[in-house]
Amino acid sequence: MIRALVLGSGMVGSVMATDLAADRGFTVTAADARPEALARVAERAARLSVPLATVQADLSSPAELARLASRADIVLGALSSHLGLTALRAVIEAGKNYCDISFMAEEAAELDDLARSRGVTCVVDMGVAPGMSNLLAGVAARQLHPCQSLEIYVGGLPRERRWPFQYKAAFSPADVIEEYTRPARIVEHGAVVVRPALSEPVLIDLPGVGTLEAFNTDGLRSLASTLKVPFMKEQTLRYPGHIELMRIFRETGLFSKQPITVKGATVIPLELTSALLFPEWTYGPGEEDLTVMRITARSASGRSVTWDLLDVFDRPTATTSMARTTAFPCTITAREIAAGRVRRPGVAPPELLADDEGFVARLMAELKSRGVVYQESWIGE
Amino acid sequence: MIRALVLGSGMVGSVMATDLAADRGFTVTAADARPEALARVAERAARLSVPLATVQADLSSPAELARLASRADIVLGALSSHLGLTALRAVIEAGKNYCDISFMAEEAAELDDLARSRGVTCVVDMGVAPGMSNLLAGVAARQLHPCQSLEIYVGGLPRERRWPFQYKAAFSPADVIEEYTRPARIVEHGAVVVRPALSEPVLIDLPGVGTLEAFNTDGLRSLASTLKVPFMKEQTLRYPGHIELMRIFRETGLFSKQPITVKGATVIPLELTSALLFPEWTYGPGEEDLTVMRITARSASGRSVTWDLLDVFDRPTATTSMARTTAFPCTITAREIAAGRVRRPGVAPPELLADDEGFVARLMAELKSRGVVYQESWIGE
Repeated sequence: MIRALVLGSGMVGSVMATDLAADRGFTVTAADARPEALARVAERAARLSVPLATVQADLSSPAELARLASRADIVLGALSSHLGLTALRAVIEAGKNYCDISFMAEEAAELDDLARSRGVTCVVDMGVAPGMSNLLAGVAARQLHPCQSLEIYVGGLPRERRWPFQYKAAFSPADVIEEYTRPARIVEHGAVVVRPALSEPVLIDLPGVGTLEAFNTDGLRSLASTLKVPFMKEQTLRYPGHIELMRIFRETGLFSKQPITVKGATVIPLELTSALLFPEWTYGPGEEDLTVMRITARSASGRSVTWDLLDVFDRPTATTSMARTTAFPCTITAREIAAGRVRRPGVAPPELLADDEGFVARLMAELKSRGVVYQESWIGE
Repeated sequence: MIRALVLGSGMVGSVMATDLAADRGFTVTAADARPEALARVAERAARLSVPLATVQADLSSPAELARLASRADIVLGALSSHLGLTALRAVIEAGKNYCDISFMAEEAAELDDLARSRGVTCVVDMGVAPGMSNLLAGVAARQLHPCQSLEIYVGGLPRERRWPFQYKAAFSPADVIEEYTRPARIVEHGAVVVRPALSEPVLIDLPGVGTLEAFNTDGLRSLASTLKVPFMKEQTLRYPGHIELMRIFRETGLFSKQPITVKGATVIPLELTSALLFPEWTYGPGEEDLTVMRITARSASGRSVTWDLLDVFDRPTATTSMARTTAFPCTITAREIAAGRVRRPGVAPPELLADDEGFVARLMAELKSRGVVYQESWIGE
C-alpha cells in the first residue's frame, strides 16, 4: 500500500486526491489549512465512494510540511503559487519524491542539486500548461530532429460566451490580469525576445470550439532554456473580443499599480478594477468550462506534428475541465514515480521526461482512459 | 450703440463675445470669475482685431450679476450648467433681455411668469442641441401639419478617430458620462417613455462623416412638452464602437456612484474612472473637432423634411466647431432681441420662436454667412 499525501485541497488538489484514492494501491491524505476546502474534498470523496483521510495543517510551515511528508511515500503538490517553493524544499528535505502543479513563480531548478543529493525525484509544473505542453514539446523536439519551431496555444474558457467579457477564471483572476500585463518572453532565432503583454493577437479556428483569439503570454517557462528550438512561443486563447477589451482596460490605466488620489482617497486602480471584475469572472454554480490546447512543432524540412486537446466539464463527477486536465497528468506521473518506473533524482520540468517513450505512452493512455484525449496528427513524411 | 454683456468666457462664451464684438453696433463686455479665461478671450479678441472689455466677477452672486446687468442692454449666458438658473433669475430681475446656452438642469420655464411680469424676453437653450434642434423641430411641426415623428441625431466628435475611445469631450467629461448613465426620455404614441441610457444603438450613414452609431440620450428637454408630436427622440452620435465600450464600462461597475472599499480605501468607482478617462478625452492642442446633426420630421402622410449639419473646426480663427455651432445661434438671436425684431416677454425655448418665419430665415442666413449650413431636403409633395 502506497501512502500518498496531497498538499492543497482546492479545485485541482481535490481532484488529484480523489483520483489517487480511487486506486486500490494507494491510501491518500488530503491536507489543507482551510476547513471548508477539506469539507469539500471529503464530500467529493464520499460522493465518488472513495476512501480519503483529511488533515488540517498550515502548509506554509516547513516544520508542518516535514511532519506530514515523513508519513508519506509520495507527495503531490497543488498549492497556491506563493507556497510552492517552500513546499518543494520541505518535501525534498524530508527525502520524499514529489510531483507538483503549484505554478511557483520562482525557479524550481534552484533546488535541483538539493534533490539530487537527497536522491529524490521531483517533477514540477506537471499540469496541462505548463505540464502536458512541456512534455509534448519535449516529444516533438526528440521526434523532429532538428525541431525548428514550437507553438503552444492554450486556454481555459467558459462553455457559454456571455457579454461582455466572454471569460471566467478557473484560477485566481489576479493571476489572469498579471498575465495580461507581464511582458511575454518568446524565443526567436534561438534567443529570448520580449513582447508586450496582449500583443500579436491572431485568430485561430479550432474544431469543436470555433474561432478563438490567441495572444502572447509569458508561458514558456523552463522550455526557453531546456529545449534547443530556435522559434518557440506560447499564446493564450480567448473568445474573440476579450483581448481588445483587456487592451483598452490596460490603456485606460485600469490595470495600473500606481496609486492615484481621487477626492482625498488613495487607491490603486488595479485593485478597484479587480474588485469589480472578479465577481464577473467567477464561475457560478452549474457554469461549465472547457480546456483547449494545440501544440504544433515543425522541422526545418517542413515536417510537422500537432496535438489537439478539447476537454469539457465532466457532469457525472461535477469536475471542471481545468481540474481534470491539470490534475490527471500529475496523479499519473506520481503513480509512475511511486512505482519506480520514473526515477530521476533532481527537480525536473516535464520536458525532461520526454525521452522516456514508455512513460509518455503510459501517460497518454491513462489520460485517454479518463477522457482527456490529445489528438496527434502528422504532416509530411 | 448696444451694450452687450456676455456671462462666461469659456470655450463658447469667448466665441459669443468676439462674434458680437465684431459688430460695429455693439460694445461688448465679457465677464468671468477666472482670470485665465478672461486672458484667453482678450487674446482672442486681439487676434481677431475686435474691441472687447473684460471684467472679473463672481457670476454665482446675484448681486454681482445685477450690478453687471444694470449696465447692459442685452445679456448673453454661457455659464456652467449649475450657474444657469441663478443667472437667469438675476438678469430677469434686473429687467434685461437674455439669450442663453447654459444648459441648466432646472426647468427654466419656472421663471416664465417672472419674466412676463418684467416684460423681458428670455430665450434659453439657444445653442445647437438644444438650440437649433428645437427651433427646426418647431419649424417642422408648423410645416408638416400634423407632424407625426421627429428624430434628432447629434454629436460632437474629434475629426481623427483614435483607438480606443474615438472620442473627445468638448465640454465636461463628467456631463458626458452622466449622459451615458441617465435614463433617456423619449416620446412614443404621444406619451413620454423612459429607455435605459445607451440603449437602442443604430448605425447611420452621414455624408462627409461616414457611418456613425446613434443611441438614446435624454435630450428632448422642453420639446417633450411644447410640441404635440406623437413620436420624438433625440439620439447622440458617436463613432461605432464607443457605445459598446461605454456599455461595458457601465456593466463592469466603473460608472457606479456606490462607494466600495478596497484594501481599506473607500472610493467611488465613477470618480476613479473619470480621473483616468478625462485626460484621454480632452482635446489636445491642434486636435480638431466636428459637429454633425440630422433632424428628420415626417407627417402621417409620409411627407418628410430633413436638415443636415456638418461643421468642422475653423482653422483661420482657431475656433472649435462645438463653439461655432453653439455660439452663433445665440449671438444671432441676441441681435434679433436687441433690435426689437424678436419680442416675446417670458422665458422661451427656441421652438417657441419657430412660428416667426422672418426670424427663422434671418437666423439661417446669418448662420450660413458664418459657414454653419443646415442643408434642408424634402421628400414627398
